[in-house]
Amino acid sequence: MADNNHGDVKLIGTWPSPFSMRPRIALNVKSVEYEFVQEQEQLCSKSELLFKSNPVHKKVPVLIHIGKPICESNIIVEYIDEVWPSGPSILPADAHDRAVARFWAAYVDEKCFPNLRAAVTAASEEEKNRAADQLKEVIARMEGAYGEVSRGKDFFGGDKIGFVDIAFGSMLGWVRAVQVMLGGVKLLDEEKTPGLVKWADKFSADLAVKDVLPETGKLIKFSKLLIAAIRAAAVED
Amino acid sequence: MADNNHGDVKLIGTWPSPFSMRPRIALNVKSVEYEFVQEQEQLCSKSELLFKSNPVHKKVPVLIHIGKPICESNIIVEYIDEVWPSGPSILPADAHDRAVARFWAAYVDEKCFPNLRAAVTAASEEEKNRAADQLKEVIARMEGAYGEVSRGKDFFGGDKIGFVDIAFGSMLGWVRAVQVMLGGVKLLDEEKTPGLVKWADKFSADLAVKDVLPETGKLIKFSKLLIAAIRAAAVED
Repeated sequence: MADNNHGDVKLIGTWPSPFSMRPRIALNVKSVEYEFVQEQEQLCSKSELLFKSNPVHKKVPVLIHIGKPICESNIIVEYIDEVWPSGPSILPADAHDRAVARFWAAYVDEKCFPNLRAAVTAASEEEKNRAADQLKEVIARMEGAYGEVSRGKDFFGGDKIGFVDIAFGSMLGWVRAVQVMLGGVKLLDEEKTPGLVKWADKFSADLAVKDVLPETGKLIKFSKLLIAAIRAAAVED
Repeated sequence: MADNNHGDVKLIGTWPSPFSMRPRIALNVKSVEYEFVQEQEQLCSKSELLFKSNPVHKKVPVLIHIGKPICESNIIVEYIDEVWPSGPSILPADAHDRAVARFWAAYVDEKCFPNLRAAVTAASEEEKNRAADQLKEVIARMEGAYGEVSRGKDFFGGDKIGFVDIAFGSMLGWVRAVQVMLGGVKLLDEEKTPGLVKWADKFSADLAVKDVLPETGKLIKFSKLLIAAIRAAAVED
């Protein structure tokens, strides 16, 4: 598993962060050993290393490779794919397929994550319902994308997990947690999104994924601490 | 200039849209002929072609290459760079440099464009001042990035315009228009951002750019129509 040709690989992240999961999965796909440098999980206080490595956004994840930092999760995944070309490809080989993969990864960031966060931090029933509706729309879109992009195979990336699997799959723990937190709302639905239900099982069981995808219960417990911290901060303001 | 090996190239866009400018510059860099299919400039009504080509976001720009649509401006630019590798490279050759270029392009989308829009549509002096302050911060960051990334050359991309030049340069017309619209506020400043002042001149004069970068006066005139349309829509709501 060691990849001594490419020097030390460190990843600054937190375990509940879906964005931190992305480079972890990508490094696993490529069988690259790395040190996971954990920030305090609620990011209430941030390390000097994080400030120094990502001075612009001060956000996780940051990959540090041979002493050089790389920021932004999807950019890190592309970097990993380019620097370790000998492992399975993460981006598709065809330029148009690559553009389509990048499109859906950007869609997840723009539409899926903000609504997951809104669902977790919703202060009223109305906010919860709105987030649930938005998420249902997003998941329906992703079901359509899965049908088109996977071409009948298990993953968005075909036979193996690829760029969209990593971008969207990193949200899977939170999708499951939100289903519970919203009182049993069905986002992944056997009838409405049968493709994604099957995909989610395969993705979660993948060797590159299973040890980094957080358990639903653990995320729900964490989200309670997070909400308490947000409310406390709001009172202090 | 014709590139018959790659079939028809169409770009759906609008002339004032900085995002539409990006693929136009990239196609010019690669000397690829294309048909510019103009949407109605305020996007009050959208064409069937746009709905069909970008059903998810229904936004410009969309590149249609050999009948296949590609959406999202930076994704299109990467696609152009990959499909026409014989022209000058837009992304850097080194993987880390490429990650850095993608980082700054994403920064422009996240921080520069929303503040330009806020400046243009600001309804009060307070909103204007806030947008101006934010933009000064963004431009200062980009000055720092220019110093690091250009390595003493004319462009972020070195001797030739590259990915960050296109991503940030596409905003240049609006940066200049906003300077006027905010009553002469200096965003590009000889003293504070001497690198970017020099860069902006070189970029604007580049053969791939000069015919697609809108004139400041034309943008200011357009923004007045846009603001009137926004206010009229608000009254109708």
